[in-house]
Amino acid sequence: MTIKIGIVGYGNLGRGVEYAIKNAPDMELMAVFTRRDPCSLRIQTEGVPVVKTANAAEWKDEIDVLILCGGSATDLPTMTPELVKLFNVVDSFDTHAKIPAHFANVDIAAKETGHIGLISVGWDPGLFSLNRLYGSAILPNGKDYTFWGKGVSQGHSDALRKIEGVKNAKQYTVPVESALEKVRSGCNPELSTRDKHTRECFVVLKEGANASAIENEIKTMPNYFADYNTTIYFISEEEFDKNHNSMAHGGFVIRSGKTGENNKHNHIIEYSLKLGSNPEFTTSVLVAYARAAYKMAAEGIKGCKTVLDVPPAYLSEKSGEELRATLL
Amino acid sequence: MTIKIGIVGYGNLGRGVEYAIKNAPDMELMAVFTRRDPCSLRIQTEGVPVVKTANAAEWKDEIDVLILCGGSATDLPTMTPELVKLFNVVDSFDTHAKIPAHFANVDIAAKETGHIGLISVGWDPGLFSLNRLYGSAILPNGKDYTFWGKGVSQGHSDALRKIEGVKNAKQYTVPVESALEKVRSGCNPELSTRDKHTRECFVVLKEGANASAIENEIKTMPNYFADYNTTIYFISEEEFDKNHNSMAHGGFVIRSGKTGENNKHNHIIEYSLKLGSNPEFTTSVLVAYARAAYKMAAEGIKGCKTVLDVPPAYLSEKSGEELRATLL
Repeated sequence: MTIKIGIVGYGNLGRGVEYAIKNAPDMELMAVFTRRDPCSLRIQTEGVPVVKTANAAEWKDEIDVLILCGGSATDLPTMTPELVKLFNVVDSFDTHAKIPAHFANVDIAAKETGHIGLISVGWDPGLFSLNRLYGSAILPNGKDYTFWGKGVSQGHSDALRKIEGVKNAKQYTVPVESALEKVRSGCNPELSTRDKHTRECFVVLKEGANASAIENEIKTMPNYFADYNTTIYFISEEEFDKNHNSMAHGGFVIRSGKTGENNKHNHIIEYSLKLGSNPEFTTSVLVAYARAAYKMAAEGIKGCKTVLDVPPAYLSEKSGEELRATLL
Repeated sequence: MTIKIGIVGYGNLGRGVEYAIKNAPDMELMAVFTRRDPCSLRIQTEGVPVVKTANAAEWKDEIDVLILCGGSATDLPTMTPELVKLFNVVDSFDTHAKIPAHFANVDIAAKETGHIGLISVGWDPGLFSLNRLYGSAILPNGKDYTFWGKGVSQGHSDALRKIEGVKNAKQYTVPVESALEKVRSGCNPELSTRDKHTRECFVVLKEGANASAIENEIKTMPNYFADYNTTIYFISEEEFDKNHNSMAHGGFVIRSGKTGENNKHNHIIEYSLKLGSNPEFTTSVLVAYARAAYKMAAEGIKGCKTVLDVPPAYLSEKSGEELRATLL
């Protein structure tokens, strides 16, 4: 049995999905959908058609699960509810505050036609959410901590690039090692925003820009930088192009909790990711959950779901019997 | 809505479940079942009856989920299939090689009367199994590594105590730090049994016992010690009683895998536990999964299940809406 997959959008995520499918013996890529001119797109898998997203409906009987590789800001809020009317879909919607609204929209659309829409799949939201859930359910008398990095924050980099006089910029979020150690010690510290992460900015200036004015503008920017210890490095375009292409990222979810008589015993659950490529790891998660979406749809499950709803065994191509014998 | 819980067996695990239930706002302890004389047992929760396990059937309409706190060697293989005919049950059966047979027995018995039997719940098998599954499904082109410790191995301690001339003994399994570091580096090393763990034995001798003969017997014992670097400390009874009561344990599951063009990018997923009390943590997992068993039974799910089958959200007392808004 082969699961027939379609990819919508062919940026870093779309390409990552294409690579991940090659590692999935039970999946076949049927088509890549794009808003661009299909003739302008060169994909990696020979013989797979590239199709205008506007014509996706023609493929509705050829595809089991569509993996949506659009952005959370403008693409997915409309793309996911629209396409879930025609297909089972998986997306990586990651604007935490807007997940409940997105869920509600996708749920209504999915139920209209009896599809499943698995949203907010990736590592945060996604695997980190799972670990926050497992941790809080198992150690209710405790506290959880999420740290991100070291890795580029797209939103913060965008904020830097919007400053007048800035030609290019990348912002790295860096977890504070001493805060991590404090959490691991089990003392359940109260940590402020400033305590947990620092921000490192690598900025290329336009000719004639005022470095110290820009430095001040960055350090005092509300929401983005004002609440953090921020370090700014002004670098040349050559250095920027040479040293700041990495898509590496990562982070930590730590649950610290107490059990027993007089809360005598302390326990630490730590989950950490060190990712060579943020988009490729995210898409590896998307592909595993596309398999789950396929299995859930086959069981008649409809509507919007998240990683919190998916039985772990559904992520694997192995049978329950095999999993119990080899992994349990 | 309160979930009515019964505990079967009142050793370290039974007591741990009792403590964990006090942290669960949606659960109530209805009865503790024991093979001992109920009058001889003092439990911590006032007003809760202690009942002979032989009379458990009388409680079948009063209890939603029974948490079985027996041992895997002799208790659970018969106890779980018997009691699942009357109740929804959760057990911590942890003899990895015998899980498929135990599953089959519990599945038949559970389906006879329409109950659910959730087996092999704890941290390994249990949370570690989940992490091996998530890791292998997300990074199929990779390898996983499980390390245990530092903590007491009951089986190895028992093996030491059976040696003639040994009065008392504890065996600690210790992960080899350099092996952990090698795995974290992403080089996917081949590690032998000896490379991954060392074994530390603390032994109290009987009067007149031959220490060097016993040391040799331990170091050459097949399966238990021969394949490991084993260190033996002969200590006094006083030192043993004073320093070797800790129930601390822990371990690591690490998945290392590659993605992308020419497998260019490496990723490390690391899950680790540092547990102040092995039995109290195991029972905290059991109690969370008792909640899941209750919810699954309410949906009409029957038969034997494992942690791999349980949707994560079922572990929490919070609604799907709350979980999406706060944890996702």
